[in-house]
Amino acid sequence: METHKGDNQSNYRSSAATLVNRRTNANDTVINVNGIEIGGRDIIIIAGPCAVENKEQLLETAKIVSSAGANILRGGAYKPRTSPYSFQGLGEDGLKYLSEARKVTGLPVVTEVMDTRLMELVCKYTDIIQIGSRSMHNFPLLKEAGKCRKPVLFKRGLMATVDEYLHAAEYILSEGNQEVILCERGIRTFENYTRNTLDLSVIPVLKRRTHLPVIVDPSHGTGYSWMVPAMAKAAIAAGADGVMVEVHYKPLEALSDGSQSLYPDEFVQLVKDIEKIARAIGRKIYHRKPSLA
Amino acid sequence: METHKGDNQSNYRSSAATLVNRRTNANDTVINVNGIEIGGRDIIIIAGPCAVENKEQLLETAKIVSSAGANILRGGAYKPRTSPYSFQGLGEDGLKYLSEARKVTGLPVVTEVMDTRLMELVCKYTDIIQIGSRSMHNFPLLKEAGKCRKPVLFKRGLMATVDEYLHAAEYILSEGNQEVILCERGIRTFENYTRNTLDLSVIPVLKRRTHLPVIVDPSHGTGYSWMVPAMAKAAIAAGADGVMVEVHYKPLEALSDGSQSLYPDEFVQLVKDIEKIARAIGRKIYHRKPSLA
Amino acid sequence: METHKGDNQSNYRSSAATLVNRRTNANDTVINVNGIEIGGRDIIIIAGPCAVENKEQLLETAKIVSSAGANILRGGAYKPRTSPYSFQGLGEDGLKYLSEARKVTGLPVVTEVMDTRLMELVCKYTDIIQIGSRSMHNFPLLKEAGKCRKPVLFKRGLMATVDEYLHAAEYILSEGNQEVILCERGIRTFENYTRNTLDLSVIPVLKRRTHLPVIVDPSHGTGYSWMVPAMAKAAIAAGADGVMVEVHYKPLEALSDGSQSLYPDEFVQLVKDIEKIARAIGRKIYHRKPSLA
Amino acid sequence: METHKGDNQSNYRSSAATLVNRRTNANDTVINVNGIEIGGRDIIIIAGPCAVENKEQLLETAKIVSSAGANILRGGAYKPRTSPYSFQGLGEDGLKYLSEARKVTGLPVVTEVMDTRLMELVCKYTDIIQIGSRSMHNFPLLKEAGKCRKPVLFKRGLMATVDEYLHAAEYILSEGNQEVILCERGIRTFENYTRNTLDLSVIPVLKRRTHLPVIVDPSHGTGYSWMVPAMAKAAIAAGADGVMVEVHYKPLEALSDGSQSLYPDEFVQLVKDIEKIARAIGRKIYHRKPSLA
Repeated sequence: METHKGDNQSNYRSSAATLVNRRTNANDTVINVNGIEIGGRDIIIIAGPCAVENKEQLLETAKIVSSAGANILRGGAYKPRTSPYSFQGLGEDGLKYLSEARKVTGLPVVTEVMDTRLMELVCKYTDIIQIGSRSMHNFPLLKEAGKCRKPVLFKRGLMATVDEYLHAAEYILSEGNQEVILCERGIRTFENYTRNTLDLSVIPVLKRRTHLPVIVDPSHGTGYSWMVPAMAKAAIAAGADGVMVEVHYKPLEALSDGSQSLYPDEFVQLVKDIEKIARAIGRKIYHRKPSLA
Repeated sequence: METHKGDNQSNYRSSAATLVNRRTNANDTVINVNGIEIGGRDIIIIAGPCAVENKEQLLETAKIVSSAGANILRGGAYKPRTSPYSFQGLGEDGLKYLSEARKVTGLPVVTEVMDTRLMELVCKYTDIIQIGSRSMHNFPLLKEAGKCRKPVLFKRGLMATVDEYLHAAEYILSEGNQEVILCERGIRTFENYTRNTLDLSVIPVLKRRTHLPVIVDPSHGTGYSWMVPAMAKAAIAAGADGVMVEVHYKPLEALSDGSQSLYPDEFVQLVKDIEKIARAIGRKIYHRKPSLA
Repeated sequence: METHKGDNQSNYRSSAATLVNRRTNANDTVINVNGIEIGGRDIIIIAGPCAVENKEQLLETAKIVSSAGANILRGGAYKPRTSPYSFQGLGEDGLKYLSEARKVTGLPVVTEVMDTRLMELVCKYTDIIQIGSRSMHNFPLLKEAGKCRKPVLFKRGLMATVDEYLHAAEYILSEGNQEVILCERGIRTFENYTRNTLDLSVIPVLKRRTHLPVIVDPSHGTGYSWMVPAMAKAAIAAGADGVMVEVHYKPLEALSDGSQSLYPDEFVQLVKDIEKIARAIGRKIYHRKPSLA
Repeated sequence: METHKGDNQSNYRSSAATLVNRRTNANDTVINVNGIEIGGRDIIIIAGPCAVENKEQLLETAKIVSSAGANILRGGAYKPRTSPYSFQGLGEDGLKYLSEARKVTGLPVVTEVMDTRLMELVCKYTDIIQIGSRSMHNFPLLKEAGKCRKPVLFKRGLMATVDEYLHAAEYILSEGNQEVILCERGIRTFENYTRNTLDLSVIPVLKRRTHLPVIVDPSHGTGYSWMVPAMAKAAIAAGADGVMVEVHYKPLEALSDGSQSLYPDEFVQLVKDIEKIARAIGRKIYHRKPSLA
């Protein structure tokens, strides 16, 4: 597909990514996860550690983010790592700890799946399936995600154009799953002062072209915890439906991505600051308690 | 393996861009332009047409942005254009119209200079000299800007790393001119849905590493007027000291960049929205009247 | 300031991608596929259609490339496509046609696998497994490829740094499979005149840092058939161990990537031209007949 | 100008870069510099140090490259440097040394000009004016180059699309100077293993779209001397009309770009290797002695 610059809707129509298209569905898609609405008037905050490292780390961090006002808990049980010799995640044990943290805090959980063969297992434990940026073009995985009955948090690839991203999302919707949450997490550019370049302009683009919720991950999108608050606030100001941030109860001991994880007190402050920005644009952080079955 | 990136201060120190460095000057540099403070507690709004096209267009647009709350008027008299056959600007006539608009509205003006030979002439007319992104590496021009006594609005190049940008700014400061306003205006990436990718994460980076004011140009940074409000608000939320936006009294008739120019009523609304975001982070739009000599 | 870049071997060592490293194995790895040596003194030519479309198309094209001097036949049975509504490949039928073409021409075949669940099936039919650029970060798939007993043609991702690429290759080697052929196929940049930017400088880099064979795919790397001959010759001149080019017996009727497929007579000429370049650097095209079991 | 992917000639025509266009002038432009033809059947080799550092360095290096077979001597008297505190070149003294080296070796010289105010002075000393990549968008400088009577070696910008590059070249031609030599010297991408990514696919693109000579600078294009031979050979194989390489009589003592400068014996070998590649494609290195006035 040869796409061009600008808001060329006729070009877009011809590309036939029809199910994600706002022209197909003019109303915003609002996804209900255990009573929490994603993509509605209120914004949501997903928080937690990069990886589930052990039971204590996850439970302690979960309690911290829950009491600070997070709506959903994140944590990776299967970690896509650059090197085969790096920590690869706890696997099913990690899923079990997530399930336990869910019981303790009442927060729904989101965790990543990378392998088609594990989709069923991960679905059994999680409330939201995450497809990571490295898997954005893993079409067999997208089709499996489209067949399961869980919402999908679907991250944009590091070098995906908007068109490619929406066509990839179409793989999920075309299999029958309409509950897709789009997530910007930084793209790769020449700049090397940040880990990636967080492309916030994609927020108005995605909101205009699709009916799906759009959230932003400023932790991966910058790679440095000290940039996270500024970019999280900017994301909300630009119209995002929520943010996903990495928080660790002891960042210096994190097995992965410690440099981009917020300390507990930094997260507490961030939630307050996000609330102010949300109010300034006529929204607020979702506050209804989740009702887990 | 993420070895090359990040906030490597020792690396930065060794590069000897010392005058721009916050370590050299811990206090924020606040630039006073005819009574308007740039880089202080309040944020500022620069607005106006891309190019000065004729007297009526400039004066009408100037009155509109002035009454809507803009602090400074922008307008190009010398236009760097991709093609030699495109409109190249009115030259000195454009400078004269800017001077007239300054008298009528009381707003200080900013305009671009591209040629070392014209620095003296442009300085005679303008309150702030603009060095455009295409000139970021024009070192002889930077040295001339360093020798003049006007503040310099210095745009980041389309493909400049932060280090290159700050070293280029150092060319200006090293010639004796400390009054440099940094300006993010979008970088070039693979994404082609926007004209450029506005890199808002550079705001916290520049505020941390330098003592200079930082503003954002969401008009060039996106290329489409409908994205400008979202990105302008995001820029302020991320900590920018101001925004520069293109406004045209009749965008459809603009000789350059019409697609990214706001209509007058869009600009009026934007100023109100920016004020709300500014208040949410404890700032506000600068409102003291400029006092032209 | 150029501090991040370059041939920083100490940095590389710390990343522990040891099995691919030339320091671990100083001798070039030469891979024998049915009597054809890849990575030795001679260069090899892989050719065939982008996708297996039907039996006639594959067999006719296979005969053409075989008689023109190709050493290995390529053809996709499972196609990763941007849109879910595009032709997705013939699946197992495609594999069967490849097997038949192999019998008719005597050429070993290479075909792509995208799904861990299909690795065993694809291995049953093919001589070389291809991992495509979109799957470069599909770590579960890489591990499966590492466990099978077939050579792996492993394409660099569109956005992969050399370090990421070699770490990904390490996933294959660390599972016990040393027979990995590296393949440059273009990276994504701002330039939009070509489909991708073919990064030929990666050839000397990969030959210096690893002991693995390196080939180049100028068809995907440019996206236009008229550029393929220039870039194929350049690749050989730069030290590549072979090229993989798309040839179609009727390019205008191709179901995918027709614009980058060579006509039969163009391929005949290209083989002759490549032979001249190979001779100029003291190599030649591999000419021993393959000996299929 | 909004340009799109592919060989869209109708799009290109509409952009009105007509003078550089092969449709305007179907025949290759051959530029005669003191008897040396650039852009004809033979290829040419430009060599010399990055910067003129002192008389001995320039003369010794000039003799080395001359006796090894170089056709033209390069050397910078005005250096665009990232930092204002780096060596900025010898200025007019450097021009005088170039003039002296020209007398001693008989080689025509090429040197860079960055400032409109110095165009006349530089023209007085040099045989070919170089416009560097950082100046590609310095339109006033391009116009001055268009008014002088010397051939212009015009480097592509680090971030320039082909369309932007050709429009910038049009600035020179539109002022009356048809003698423009295009030069690829690497573009900026995410990859950080090389200093830049040498885009050799631009060679067939430029040869197809324009009638101008095309050369390649693999020294700046890679940043590392050990990659230069591979990429220089690849450039010739891809159809370039010549290469420009940095050679220093004592690379370890170079004041700039030492890591990318060839040792004298490496250059001697490279000329021999280039001759072999040139012969393989039916060309050869230009060998007629220059006839200086």
